[in-house]
Amino acid sequence: MSSSDFPPGTVWLVGAGPGDPELLTRKAERLIAAADIVFHDALVGEGVLALVPVGAERVSVGKRSGRHSKPQEAIDAVIVAAALAGRRVVRLKGGDPSIFGRSTEEIDACRAAGVPIRLCPGITAASAAAAAATTSLTLRGLARKLTFVTAHARAGEPLDLAWDTLTASDATLAVYMGRAAAPEIARRLIAAGRDARTPVLVAVNVSLPSERIIHGTLASLAFLVEAIGDDDPTLLLIGESVAREGRGRTVPASAETGRRSDVLLT
Amino acid sequence: MSSSDFPPGTVWLVGAGPGDPELLTRKAERLIAAADIVFHDALVGEGVLALVPVGAERVSVGKRSGRHSKPQEAIDAVIVAAALAGRRVVRLKGGDPSIFGRSTEEIDACRAAGVPIRLCPGITAASAAAAAATTSLTLRGLARKLTFVTAHARAGEPLDLAWDTLTASDATLAVYMGRAAAPEIARRLIAAGRDARTPVLVAVNVSLPSERIIHGTLASLAFLVEAIGDDDPTLLLIGESVAREGRGRTVPASAETGRRSDVLLT
Repeated sequence: MSSSDFPPGTVWLVGAGPGDPELLTRKAERLIAAADIVFHDALVGEGVLALVPVGAERVSVGKRSGRHSKPQEAIDAVIVAAALAGRRVVRLKGGDPSIFGRSTEEIDACRAAGVPIRLCPGITAASAAAAAATTSLTLRGLARKLTFVTAHARAGEPLDLAWDTLTASDATLAVYMGRAAAPEIARRLIAAGRDARTPVLVAVNVSLPSERIIHGTLASLAFLVEAIGDDDPTLLLIGESVAREGRGRTVPASAETGRRSDVLLT
Repeated sequence: MSSSDFPPGTVWLVGAGPGDPELLTRKAERLIAAADIVFHDALVGEGVLALVPVGAERVSVGKRSGRHSKPQEAIDAVIVAAALAGRRVVRLKGGDPSIFGRSTEEIDACRAAGVPIRLCPGITAASAAAAAATTSLTLRGLARKLTFVTAHARAGEPLDLAWDTLTASDATLAVYMGRAAAPEIARRLIAAGRDARTPVLVAVNVSLPSERIIHGTLASLAFLVEAIGDDDPTLLLIGESVAREGRGRTVPASAETGRRSDVLLT
């Protein structure tokens, strides 16, 4: 990235990754360092925000699951206004802006106002969770498909994830914001035909010091999430690839280099 | 990352991202800088490899689509041997190691040999392509599901992607290594019921100076890939979210900040 990539009056929509500032891209780090003003979600970690330069303004447009402190239109408006005032604007979003980041609204608002906007990708929670658990999300032959969904339905709407398309045994399912809906997801997937013994990995606060990686099965999923707090970002990974000891894998769990307190419920 | 995270005799499996060294994570950069030896795929970009310290050894275990210069077992063996010899080993893989990275084989080989192995995530091609095209992979209401598949079947095997599970109009499909199979993918998806007018984005050499972002539809996909070279990593993105002007989006294409030569075939 050169300084000509970030002239005054432009917006960069930047993926902040899962929380650990070490998981920012080098490009994101440089964009943040060059910003005049940074608008960020509540989910962006303190370690990342600490990289905002002292002279730059930090504005929380804090969204958390189910509680939007500002409506999207108001966020669009303040971003556009800052750019039109000639500032270098960074809009920091947790994870990757293109995956359940609601980026389209902000891209369209900038374009409608004639404000140049560009995107910098981020590490999405599923990648970070797989890394934390030293596992893969795909497996040759056994996990050939990886599907991301979000369990965060619009208020009052039922969770409709087309369950019958998610039952193939060779597919890995990643459910973002999956804590509250976990019991329903397990019930529906099993009812639609997914094996109740399908391995599950629950990743809480991925990459942060409070990270927890919990192993289990679809049958035990409802119990695995019981102790997780409402505000702790929770990702569910469901499929053969996230087995502690996958099919065709022969190494006992005790050989893992795990440094965290894992729970194994099967 | 502290130096205690990378003692001699350990392996870090590190995501190199799509090619641009700016899209490495800060953690990956530090791990590479601390390595005694770096094993890398052919797809890892020169800019990333330039970060390998002068005193460290660089070993290509180069795989390209359809041509494996070393069988996987041989790669496993050299990685394990380097760690057992007391070296700090970085295994660099293009993109994110957990997404079509065949990481499980190397993780299991290290564990079987008692070699500690950890993972550092990387930016996967789909995230980088969405960023390059200033678009999202999901859209509230219109693109609620995102599925990753690879079109790289085992030699001689037919491409079997369970087409009937990939036809929902509210799903985005990302096809890794999709160039050669693009005509078949378009034909099969349309035959299974996906609208031939579904927007398509073809991303070639994402994040590199030779990057090309090509817009079209499922009906035109076979033509879009015709001029792409065999060795150019190609990602297909299929779905409403990657429309140049998506449903409910009102801004003309001319308002885009595009800096690349886009082709629009519809």
